[in-house]
Amino acid sequence: MDLRTILAPIQDDLAVFEQEFKEMFRSNIDVIDQIADHLIRAKGKRLRPALVLLSAATHGQPRQDAIRVAAIVELIHTATLVHDDVVDEATVRRGLPSLNSIWDNHVSVLLGDYLLAKALTLILLLDSRDMMLTISRSTERLSKGELLQANQGADPDITEAEYFEIIGDKTASLVSAGCEIGAFLTSGSKDVAACFRQYGESLGLAFQIADDLLDFVGDADTIGKPTGNDVRTGTVTLPLIRALQRAPHAEAAAIREIIDGEIDDGDWQRVIEFTKARGGIEYARQKAEAFAATAKAQLNSVKDSPAKRSLLAMVDYAIDREK
Amino acid sequence: MDLRTILAPIQDDLAVFEQEFKEMFRSNIDVIDQIADHLIRAKGKRLRPALVLLSAATHGQPRQDAIRVAAIVELIHTATLVHDDVVDEATVRRGLPSLNSIWDNHVSVLLGDYLLAKALTLILLLDSRDMMLTISRSTERLSKGELLQANQGADPDITEAEYFEIIGDKTASLVSAGCEIGAFLTSGSKDVAACFRQYGESLGLAFQIADDLLDFVGDADTIGKPTGNDVRTGTVTLPLIRALQRAPHAEAAAIREIIDGEIDDGDWQRVIEFTKARGGIEYARQKAEAFAATAKAQLNSVKDSPAKRSLLAMVDYAIDREK
Repeated sequence: MDLRTILAPIQDDLAVFEQEFKEMFRSNIDVIDQIADHLIRAKGKRLRPALVLLSAATHGQPRQDAIRVAAIVELIHTATLVHDDVVDEATVRRGLPSLNSIWDNHVSVLLGDYLLAKALTLILLLDSRDMMLTISRSTERLSKGELLQANQGADPDITEAEYFEIIGDKTASLVSAGCEIGAFLTSGSKDVAACFRQYGESLGLAFQIADDLLDFVGDADTIGKPTGNDVRTGTVTLPLIRALQRAPHAEAAAIREIIDGEIDDGDWQRVIEFTKARGGIEYARQKAEAFAATAKAQLNSVKDSPAKRSLLAMVDYAIDREK
Repeated sequence: MDLRTILAPIQDDLAVFEQEFKEMFRSNIDVIDQIADHLIRAKGKRLRPALVLLSAATHGQPRQDAIRVAAIVELIHTATLVHDDVVDEATVRRGLPSLNSIWDNHVSVLLGDYLLAKALTLILLLDSRDMMLTISRSTERLSKGELLQANQGADPDITEAEYFEIIGDKTASLVSAGCEIGAFLTSGSKDVAACFRQYGESLGLAFQIADDLLDFVGDADTIGKPTGNDVRTGTVTLPLIRALQRAPHAEAAAIREIIDGEIDDGDWQRVIEFTKARGGIEYARQKAEAFAATAKAQLNSVKDSPAKRSLLAMVDYAIDREK
């Protein structure tokens, strides 16, 4: 199923979301509105809001509250992207110049804060404190994960357990919160919501591992940025962690030295070859597939519906996508 | 009244606050705990938590909830300081190396986000949605003010109205929210809380004008950083705005040119002389005093108490302080 087909059951809701999301940005302040326009033009795949709406749609028609949650989740995600670009000193995001390359790091930091503060006010308009806490705790996990990753630097000795903690925090937490709340809003059941939380957590992990794999084996034109970006900006991910674990000491030491310095294209080719040869790519693929299977299993007791079929297809999409 | 005397009525509560604040930072994550230690060592004057506690103490004994609000307000303030240092590329904060000069901008951005996310979760533990919204809206105003200021750049044509909007947002909003909630917690009265909100707003404005004045006429050793920092980092404040308005065209144009470029010590001396000669210093002082008088007048109907006397003295402290 392609992404368009996956989103079909909620396409009307997504259109309403898109309107609401635009409204949220509007501020009557020139610089904010200019940046908002830029961010809306550079819009991503809207996977997080889609997951909120699909989760809701498994147990009824998503209403205004689900659309609001979808918008809050996307707002938080957008804020972290803006700050990520500062952290990564990125110049391109989603094929357009990154925010910090047009305005500057200062404005980007403060705009990210502004979006977070906006999201906070919107969270307070939700109906239940449980939902508010679910989102706020996921935001806390998200920033903790980003912080751990930034601080880790290009530490080649990061363990698999540390890696999974980081990606759980930085990626799975918000996806998981969105699915949990989406399902709760229409089912009204904590048990159902718990299954969707687990679905979102496993999906998020599978998604991030697949993302990290793309940085090794993706096509630069298709993904819109050069591969090897993670290692160059100091992030060591699962394929390389595994390869370093499995390689003989001397071979691993040579790769560690490369990672430690400035990495040119030749260095990067060597790192890719090494990672493939030592089974890192294959291992990460297996892990992504295992989390994908776990995600699907969480929906076993959910009644069949177009939305459920889309959520299952979303799992395949997460691990098979080319960008 | 010196600051020590001002704080006397709430010194026990402040000690509990200090403990609670430390606890909030604890995370079991090395980098966060190291940064927390640093931030706690470089602690400021704790004016914001003191204002929450004093406001509460005018109508009863501050309880756990007031201490929590004090800690939330200080947490938000600390997060913005951390991001300010990134924005300003500061190397010193409160006499100690700034966070971004020890770790790096990346970690500073993400740590600020983490503190904001923590604050968000703590806000959700408060008793009423009104209080939550008061804090979240002040956080939104705060980040909007910071953003406007950063984007304004060293624009010498910023108007007084724009200046007051910026300092209202970036400084007065959080002070105002803290005073409002503090008073509400013990008085239970929205009318009382509204007076304290106005008190906090006017106090915040007076405080920020005084702060901006110190950057012109303060003693570098006493304030712990060189004067002229605002203009050098692209912020034009009230004394200079006023002087530029009042000066003959040619004289103002020459100063505008200086501000526009790299500013050396000689340039800065010229800007100070100009600002004094054209009455900018005097005008800003009068404005600070007018807001101070407005702040005090808000407490007219509040019964006399040591806490009330401290709040009145805090106004004098805000505009008379040397650092």
